[in-house]
Amino acid sequence: MFMFQKMVVAGVGLIGGSLALDMRRRGLAKEIVGYGRTEANLKIARRKRIIDSYFVREEDIPTDTDFLMLGTPVQTIVPLTAAFLPRLQRGCIVSDVGSVKAEVVRGMEKLLPSGIYFVGAHPIAGSEQWGAEAARENLFMGRHCILTPTRKTNRGALKKMELLWRRVGSDVEVMNANQHDHILGTVSHLPHVAAFTLVNTLDQVKSDGIDLKRFCAGGFRDITRIASSRPELWRDICLLNRRAVSKSLSGYIRKLQRIKRWIDDGNGRALEREFANANEVREQLG
Amino acid sequence: MFMFQKMVVAGVGLIGGSLALDMRRRGLAKEIVGYGRTEANLKIARRKRIIDSYFVREEDIPTDTDFLMLGTPVQTIVPLTAAFLPRLQRGCIVSDVGSVKAEVVRGMEKLLPSGIYFVGAHPIAGSEQWGAEAARENLFMGRHCILTPTRKTNRGALKKMELLWRRVGSDVEVMNANQHDHILGTVSHLPHVAAFTLVNTLDQVKSDGIDLKRFCAGGFRDITRIASSRPELWRDICLLNRRAVSKSLSGYIRKLQRIKRWIDDGNGRALEREFANANEVREQLG
Repeated sequence: MFMFQKMVVAGVGLIGGSLALDMRRRGLAKEIVGYGRTEANLKIARRKRIIDSYFVREEDIPTDTDFLMLGTPVQTIVPLTAAFLPRLQRGCIVSDVGSVKAEVVRGMEKLLPSGIYFVGAHPIAGSEQWGAEAARENLFMGRHCILTPTRKTNRGALKKMELLWRRVGSDVEVMNANQHDHILGTVSHLPHVAAFTLVNTLDQVKSDGIDLKRFCAGGFRDITRIASSRPELWRDICLLNRRAVSKSLSGYIRKLQRIKRWIDDGNGRALEREFANANEVREQLG
Repeated sequence: MFMFQKMVVAGVGLIGGSLALDMRRRGLAKEIVGYGRTEANLKIARRKRIIDSYFVREEDIPTDTDFLMLGTPVQTIVPLTAAFLPRLQRGCIVSDVGSVKAEVVRGMEKLLPSGIYFVGAHPIAGSEQWGAEAARENLFMGRHCILTPTRKTNRGALKKMELLWRRVGSDVEVMNANQHDHILGTVSHLPHVAAFTLVNTLDQVKSDGIDLKRFCAGGFRDITRIASSRPELWRDICLLNRRAVSKSLSGYIRKLQRIKRWIDDGNGRALEREFANANEVREQLG
């Protein structure tokens, strides 16, 4: 018994593609159809047997789709669903894997009629890689997947999504979309902004006459790896999760200003206390 | 022909220990003696055959030492050399591997009599690991090693140090100590402060009631790995390289404030430009 007969993955990238791979291998979807704007990526996905077939015009979405998974950048999730909507049938479950949830959940609930069931989801398994080429099996194994239902969410659809993410190995957490955005604003969005900015600080000093890039050791490379992430994706995440990102950024800036004061004042005791605290917290992350 | 007959490594940790390993294997030092305050670490070093023997009281340094390598934390380099000085012989070369150079070079030149030759060095090969246990062969292979001579530096000693670092596989760069500190303040010291502070920002939000640590994905772990570095070491680096760290920290804070404004104003174009620039610079780092 397949969980779904016909699944459409819109955006066959790292997340959407990896989920399709796992679902096929575990017999969770009978047929998997890809959608995207870049045919080259869809061809790679078909060659890797992530999808059985694909379409590139929204109006070609199969009418018997019973699971629509949106793996496209966050700001496209609602408008793309609107484009698919005329051909979606009653009972179809729609879900996404966007990194920001409150805006998406709000938009989807406004858009979708009763009878088409939306469940917001965010598997925490992203990386700086992208495209079907980056998709791989077991990406979600042991990772958290946060589901963000509301009072309007269909309970059956929610149960099915919980089961789906558990079957691909995730640790499922259910929480409020705002709480999700607050957490991710700190553990993911802020670090991305910090990394992009560190790299640009380096680049700026270069323009003073020295090319600092030659002296970057492993530490800098590690800390800035996520600055290879797609700019337009992170622009949208920052804008869609504006409040939480701005707040955590403020907290970060305040802490940096305090450290700068301690450095200027030669306050070694405060610096050591601050760094030692980071040490302890970091140990707990493993 | 050995380059040195009797080398003393003060601080047999990741850097000092790895250098000793490479020098022994390449026949660059006939006898290697370790010094440190923690006997347990010296015993590990002897067991790993990093050193032949060791001593723990400064006054026990062998009088026929012809190469004294200081691998201890930056702020200890000058006072420790002062403690060894009464037993050092004419012609002995003294060098270090400290992450801050101007202060160290100044202090050493003030301290040492002519006839004992100091050459400041900084192999860029540190990591968050430490101790003799972390020492390993070929740590410096393909890495930069910056030497910071002054007009007072003995040319023969400088040549010998250039040769030494080349023999262990490093790319040797010779530059002014201030320039070194300026560069490292941006490519290394600033990222450490940024990482420590990111972790503490996370920790602070936790105290609002949610433990965010459970939701940290690979990105956060990568970007904060260097926050596992030793607090007292980084306290000293920040204080010894106060001016450069404070300046790069200011630049970083200003950039973050600008990004916060763009987020608050919904200026997607500016955000994308900023992130795309970071993307390009990051690509060049590999």
